[in-house]
Amino acid sequence: MSPDSTRKITLAPMLSVRNGAKAVEFYQAAFGADTLFRLDDGGAVVAQLSIPGAGQGAEFWVADESPEHANFSPETLGGCTVRLVLTVEDPDAVFDRAVAAGATTVWPVADQPYQWRVGRLVDPFGHHWEIGKPL
Amino acid sequence: MSPDSTRKITLAPMLSVRNGAKAVEFYQAAFGADTLFRLDDGGAVVAQLSIPGAGQGAEFWVADESPEHANFSPETLGGCTVRLVLTVEDPDAVFDRAVAAGATTVWPVADQPYQWRVGRLVDPFGHHWEIGKPL
Repeated sequence: MSPDSTRKITLAPMLSVRNGAKAVEFYQAAFGADTLFRLDDGGAVVAQLSIPGAGQGAEFWVADESPEHANFSPETLGGCTVRLVLTVEDPDAVFDRAVAAGATTVWPVADQPYQWRVGRLVDPFGHHWEIGKPL
Repeated sequence: MSPDSTRKITLAPMLSVRNGAKAVEFYQAAFGADTLFRLDDGGAVVAQLSIPGAGQGAEFWVADESPEHANFSPETLGGCTVRLVLTVEDPDAVFDRAVAAGATTVWPVADQPYQWRVGRLVDPFGHHWEIGKPL
């Protein structure tokens, strides 16, 4: 354990996208995300979102890309360097809702040999999500 | 609130890297990360790590890239699509330890006009971290 072991620590991914405003709308529709913070700055958006759940929920950030600051969208780079592992109690329902909101199935939710029930989708902004739960 | 509001939910980023084994060593040295799970499969590593703190700590995953499965390292794409916002009580100390372990400063920890004390670094595998706390 580090000297920080009694101190609060959180890690939240910040997703770079093209069209942050539309991305926030998508994550609200797909995951029921609440907006905790939002800054609109000359067309660019930075937003802190939380997918509701027990405790503080699942927090993440969405921001318009700014390649001049080394923040690249998946559309600009042609792929993702981080995928998002979303653990929920009912992965089938959460996955289906996201697809209904506009995400595309990469592989459907199924029981995997590594003892997770999980599926993978890509959202309209190019970010990949694995939605599942341990069995 | 969604129908899931009373259910446990977590979101953990999975970082694609070249040389997952060395990346795990780096995150142990830089952040004092504990290994919660590790699978070694023919040279490729998938590991679940946690940076200790109050509660369950800050969990993330590290995995060797697999471009055939759309998992790309920052080295392969030449940039990052997600940056990692690590909130800690002492950002200066956490930042300095990571730099001592081999990360490179993008901009140093300082008080920002948006009321965070935060700095940005890039780790040896090309992932960008913003390490800070709200003021």
